[in-house]
Amino acid sequence: MDTLQIVLASRPQEFPNLDNFKTERIVLPDVQEDEVLVEGLYYSVDPYMRGRMNDSKSYISSYQIGEPIIGGVVGKAIESKSDKIKPGDIVLGRLPWRTRTVASIKGLQKIEYTQFPLSYFLGVLGMPGLTAYFGLLDIGKPKAGQTVVVSGAAGAVGIVVGQIAVIQGCRVLGIVGSDKKAEHLKTEYGFDEAINYKTSPDLIQAVGQACPRGVDIYFDNVGGEISDAVISHLNFQARIAICGQISLYNSPGTPIGPRLQPQLLSRSAMAQGFIVSNYQDRFGEGFQQLVRWVKEGKIKYPETIVKGFEQLPSALIGLFKGDNMGKMIVKI
Amino acid sequence: MDTLQIVLASRPQEFPNLDNFKTERIVLPDVQEDEVLVEGLYYSVDPYMRGRMNDSKSYISSYQIGEPIIGGVVGKAIESKSDKIKPGDIVLGRLPWRTRTVASIKGLQKIEYTQFPLSYFLGVLGMPGLTAYFGLLDIGKPKAGQTVVVSGAAGAVGIVVGQIAVIQGCRVLGIVGSDKKAEHLKTEYGFDEAINYKTSPDLIQAVGQACPRGVDIYFDNVGGEISDAVISHLNFQARIAICGQISLYNSPGTPIGPRLQPQLLSRSAMAQGFIVSNYQDRFGEGFQQLVRWVKEGKIKYPETIVKGFEQLPSALIGLFKGDNMGKMIVKI
Repeated sequence: MDTLQIVLASRPQEFPNLDNFKTERIVLPDVQEDEVLVEGLYYSVDPYMRGRMNDSKSYISSYQIGEPIIGGVVGKAIESKSDKIKPGDIVLGRLPWRTRTVASIKGLQKIEYTQFPLSYFLGVLGMPGLTAYFGLLDIGKPKAGQTVVVSGAAGAVGIVVGQIAVIQGCRVLGIVGSDKKAEHLKTEYGFDEAINYKTSPDLIQAVGQACPRGVDIYFDNVGGEISDAVISHLNFQARIAICGQISLYNSPGTPIGPRLQPQLLSRSAMAQGFIVSNYQDRFGEGFQQLVRWVKEGKIKYPETIVKGFEQLPSALIGLFKGDNMGKMIVKI
Repeated sequence: MDTLQIVLASRPQEFPNLDNFKTERIVLPDVQEDEVLVEGLYYSVDPYMRGRMNDSKSYISSYQIGEPIIGGVVGKAIESKSDKIKPGDIVLGRLPWRTRTVASIKGLQKIEYTQFPLSYFLGVLGMPGLTAYFGLLDIGKPKAGQTVVVSGAAGAVGIVVGQIAVIQGCRVLGIVGSDKKAEHLKTEYGFDEAINYKTSPDLIQAVGQACPRGVDIYFDNVGGEISDAVISHLNFQARIAICGQISLYNSPGTPIGPRLQPQLLSRSAMAQGFIVSNYQDRFGEGFQQLVRWVKEGKIKYPETIVKGFEQLPSALIGLFKGDNMGKMIVKI
């Protein structure tokens, strides 16, 4: 049986473009014992993929030239040589960008909660939701009345962070890249304040105005100058959860900026980098809580759905242009 | 009764010099109810004092022009209008730089453990020792077999940090500014490795060689490029205790350098600024443990003792030239 696949054709120097990807047709091997033939339904594109396109050491390994991109996929089993997964079952896995693929059952998880849109398992009920949950609650440790700032606030992770902060009784400021996103955060997602950093003439002042009692918790998805502005308003014993640095991913070399250490020292503040897999043994807890909040309507989750397998590269590139409101998904 | 006092004459722009201080004679007020007349015996000079000489917001308030410098002092009560402190008692307090001063008993602590050198209460059994204790144990959380790096390792705090790390079973690298200090750390204070950053041709490489299993805990007293070199070797889930940034204290403006956040993100590492007063309610615990370790000979404590009240300004300036091995003290 054959399939389309999308491979890494070349490594981007700075901003990725379509030439870094190649679509090709290959023949799949036969399904062996404990393997399943999966047909892709929903594909996740995520900012961390940009790091894997480099040949440098990061917290996850690099994609190889000529090999398919790998990411979160929700698919349907169409052939199985395992008792655990039957044809017709819906599965989640980290799979190659192929229309169909043969996967070991070890890397697949059966999705039981089919009352939710299947794409949610790549978003609010998947890695982005769990990232928001553990980063905000375990590192940020929000208390009612505290001020939480989220950068990349309209993204797949940020929009969940902000709503969990609201549930905790915090005052929440979201920083985003368009007026429309800022408006949506306030009117539909319960954020107290939202700033469009692209049109704000003085971001330091704007954050100060939006956070009159200073910043207790900063959930950082973007890094760079947006973070500098937030950090200038940190309160005593503030906490920074460093989830992503998307503003720096496309810049070659070591990013330079104001040193963070004097800021942390003068406020007895803390900054913690993390990746969601650090919390692997607590995924069950996080998932169940997110399911409850989504059912109760306390967390709403926007998605930007692009149609067509061939659109995967441009959807990924679109993340770095801020094309997405909420989770960016490619649907077949 | 009159006294000499040393006041802040002007604020230093960069490196402090003797012109920033003025010695003058004043007449003291009479001792009132609940006050004590204290004669100074030992005066502490500490790096944090440089920050108080600025007019900027820091974690402690600024010294005022024309007002005496304030710091840790061990003295003898020579007159008292309180039942709690009698003439002849040895007391510790944050007191003005005066040969004698009238102080409220609220700010004084009677020193009972007179089997130790009195200067120890400004060092290993005082704020520097407690700073080392809480910063390393509470933030660094060292485990046996881990690698601990200390910058400013021959200073009042650093030399205690290294020895506590040895007690915890860690491999310890100290970074210092002279070959003699480096030698002492290894031969007398139990450090496994020591680097003189001033003569090291490639500090990144030198730290890598001294820490073949990477860096689990970095106790940072100095900041700047020394810290950059250490941070390039951080292990997964490493922890940085930010205690001081002495290399930056004399530079005007915002210090610029490689951004820390991407480093913390890629290693799921943590950086925490702190000041010892955050641990005020646990001072008893820390003090008792330090007393035990000093009695057992597990912590040895060098002091650089300068004689004469008038030497206080030059002793303070000397800290920034690295004149001191261990705690810098001015003795009357």
